[in-house]
Amino acid sequence: MSQLSETHRDEMHALGRRARAASRALARAPGRARAAALQGMADALDAHHAEILAANAKDLARADEKGITGAMRDRLALTAGRIADMAAGLREIASLPDPIGEVLSERTRPNGIRVAQVRIPLGVIGIIYEARPNVTADAAGLCLKSGNVVFLRGGSEAAHSNAAILAVLREAVAAAGLPADAIMSLPSTDRAWILAMLEAEEFLDVIIPRGGEALIRFVTANSRVPVIKHYKGVCHVFVDCDADLDKAEAIAFNAKVQRPGVCNAMETLLVHATVADQFLPRIAAALIEAGVELRGCPRTLCLVPSAVAATEADWHAEFLDLILAVRVVDDYDAALDHIATYGSDHTEAIVSENYSTVRRFLTEVNSSVVVANASTRFSDGGQMGLGAEIGISTTRLHAYGPMGVNDLTTRKYVITGDGQTRH
Amino acid sequence: MSQLSETHRDEMHALGRRARAASRALARAPGRARAAALQGMADALDAHHAEILAANAKDLARADEKGITGAMRDRLALTAGRIADMAAGLREIASLPDPIGEVLSERTRPNGIRVAQVRIPLGVIGIIYEARPNVTADAAGLCLKSGNVVFLRGGSEAAHSNAAILAVLREAVAAAGLPADAIMSLPSTDRAWILAMLEAEEFLDVIIPRGGEALIRFVTANSRVPVIKHYKGVCHVFVDCDADLDKAEAIAFNAKVQRPGVCNAMETLLVHATVADQFLPRIAAALIEAGVELRGCPRTLCLVPSAVAATEADWHAEFLDLILAVRVVDDYDAALDHIATYGSDHTEAIVSENYSTVRRFLTEVNSSVVVANASTRFSDGGQMGLGAEIGISTTRLHAYGPMGVNDLTTRKYVITGDGQTRH
Repeated sequence: MSQLSETHRDEMHALGRRARAASRALARAPGRARAAALQGMADALDAHHAEILAANAKDLARADEKGITGAMRDRLALTAGRIADMAAGLREIASLPDPIGEVLSERTRPNGIRVAQVRIPLGVIGIIYEARPNVTADAAGLCLKSGNVVFLRGGSEAAHSNAAILAVLREAVAAAGLPADAIMSLPSTDRAWILAMLEAEEFLDVIIPRGGEALIRFVTANSRVPVIKHYKGVCHVFVDCDADLDKAEAIAFNAKVQRPGVCNAMETLLVHATVADQFLPRIAAALIEAGVELRGCPRTLCLVPSAVAATEADWHAEFLDLILAVRVVDDYDAALDHIATYGSDHTEAIVSENYSTVRRFLTEVNSSVVVANASTRFSDGGQMGLGAEIGISTTRLHAYGPMGVNDLTTRKYVITGDGQTRH
Repeated sequence: MSQLSETHRDEMHALGRRARAASRALARAPGRARAAALQGMADALDAHHAEILAANAKDLARADEKGITGAMRDRLALTAGRIADMAAGLREIASLPDPIGEVLSERTRPNGIRVAQVRIPLGVIGIIYEARPNVTADAAGLCLKSGNVVFLRGGSEAAHSNAAILAVLREAVAAAGLPADAIMSLPSTDRAWILAMLEAEEFLDVIIPRGGEALIRFVTANSRVPVIKHYKGVCHVFVDCDADLDKAEAIAFNAKVQRPGVCNAMETLLVHATVADQFLPRIAAALIEAGVELRGCPRTLCLVPSAVAATEADWHAEFLDLILAVRVVDDYDAALDHIATYGSDHTEAIVSENYSTVRRFLTEVNSSVVVANASTRFSDGGQMGLGAEIGISTTRLHAYGPMGVNDLTTRKYVITGDGQTRH
């Protein structure tokens, strides 16, 4: 790995000063100007899709040389349709309500000063991501909508694609009368630049890493800039003794099978001992038919002979695949203990018709999203009505759960008086 | 400085597990139980004030041996009156509205699921502070009120005082039926323990350092746990060409002189060139009479011959003393440029009767607190009606400006359905 040098640091500071200058200009631009720039960015992606595809072809050729295949190559590949989707995403972001300037509260104090809280941009947002070029447009769009400068560092696999998209978007922002530096990137994908970025606390207000756990741990361990992150999603569904077993089957099946490779898919199923003999054989049959490998506790193995024995590692695992850990628990408290021990604070669901049990679960489980009688797959900004999602946080500071445009803002206090001084 | 060892790490993890267990219990306790524990803590401080004073006498004796005097010794010293103030502070915190469980928003989605945002505790809050033993009770009270476990690391100078206060408070919490581990501390004031704490990201949700800039920079550089902080307060007052000069004089005088040693005191006065010859001589006379040393730009020196020439360092300085940097600026934009270059995002004030200028300033300056026609000294949780203050943040993530009890919380999403699955 390359080392951070004085040159990196100096260049990063120069870029950081440009970002801060753009941030000041952007914070003054009215919402209408930001929305117009987003429309212009969408139009520009459509108009320049041939150049973007040509750049993407270079990245794909290099990926093929390296023998990259499957899901990773798929994430890298752009098509005319995917570029049109990126443009449509920008238009949707443009149409969201403007978060900036919202007055969140206002009060008059006994001495007559008024104290308001007003929503403002975070400032400069760093996004560190891997091989998905569509993140370039999504992140730039969400940051611009919320009045933030975005500072992008994409993966080297997508370097040509990202550079092409960046050039198109910067030109469109400038054409709309806003600073092109509203969208910036590191000069190279060399890892030393990431270190320079992580040190630049005067110039960046937050870094959001999007990618595998190793990347996110590297960023957290090395950053002086605050980080919003989630390491992994080990989501649980607890089928209570008072569950409607038809709902339980539909929910558990959907949570595991509908899209197993995403962070809000179920990874562990917890079944109350009282209903285990009724419920486990039927859900197991449905899951096995769908190709799911079951890894069970000893009691599960008695009821589902085709399951394999779960190891301690399986309870911690984010499989992101058609694999499910299954445990029979004695009661509600044992379910909560399991979640407290192995959970990742992402999403936990209960299936139960018992009012008091549901109420306890929703109160006592403090994961970022807690669900009663619905699939964990609803733990998603779009599904929850937050609009486009910039990421998800499983650390509690600032944002917790799926993050929409509002989570890219903060609030300042505005005090107005007519000459008051303090005694 | 001591180095972090495996022993430190193992012991920190054992403490962290206890903190997490207490956090789960605390998050389930109703607001009434937390308020009763706070009352019990206040009563216990009153009842045990003799022991606390005896412990404080040991700290003071050691401080005297070391030759510690002045403000630092004063911050360390407790009296019966100061202990009564700590108890009164806890009773006031007990009487605040309970922040936990507040529903911040709720919506029904087209498929019938309901999505609510509910306020919950942050979890476990680390407080690293220096020689002020009253912080022990204040921080413990604010954290308990908001359902958080507090993990304290006080300065070695106050070790006996802090240990005595901690023992009294823990006993009171246990007597009220809540876990004594709601209030924890590091086993020693050895600095290696701070490093163990900064690494313990599984067990701590946030660290709030309170103290000098060196301490805060050390914490930020070494922490994997998110940090809420402010490095310093370089607060500006801008006297516009349309200022009411009587108000301007009262505000500038108050902002500098009323309590110069605190972070919301004015450090730099910016005066519009148009009114400089009218305003500067009169405010300078008042300030000099109050014992303030003026450090001015060349134009200031012409108008105030007794001022000394300001250096570049003076524009960056948080004097925390009866010293003021003064600059004459050509216009509004020059004032904003100065603030953007030298400001610390703490508190900036404008004095002006011009509606449009005030509106621009309050919109365009994104410091954590912006003020029109009032003293910067109102940038304070108590003055602003937030209740007791746990600290102030000049970084934009999570909280920005003075922090009250609500800023020690986050929100989770609660999704309720009746069997919904995702298509």
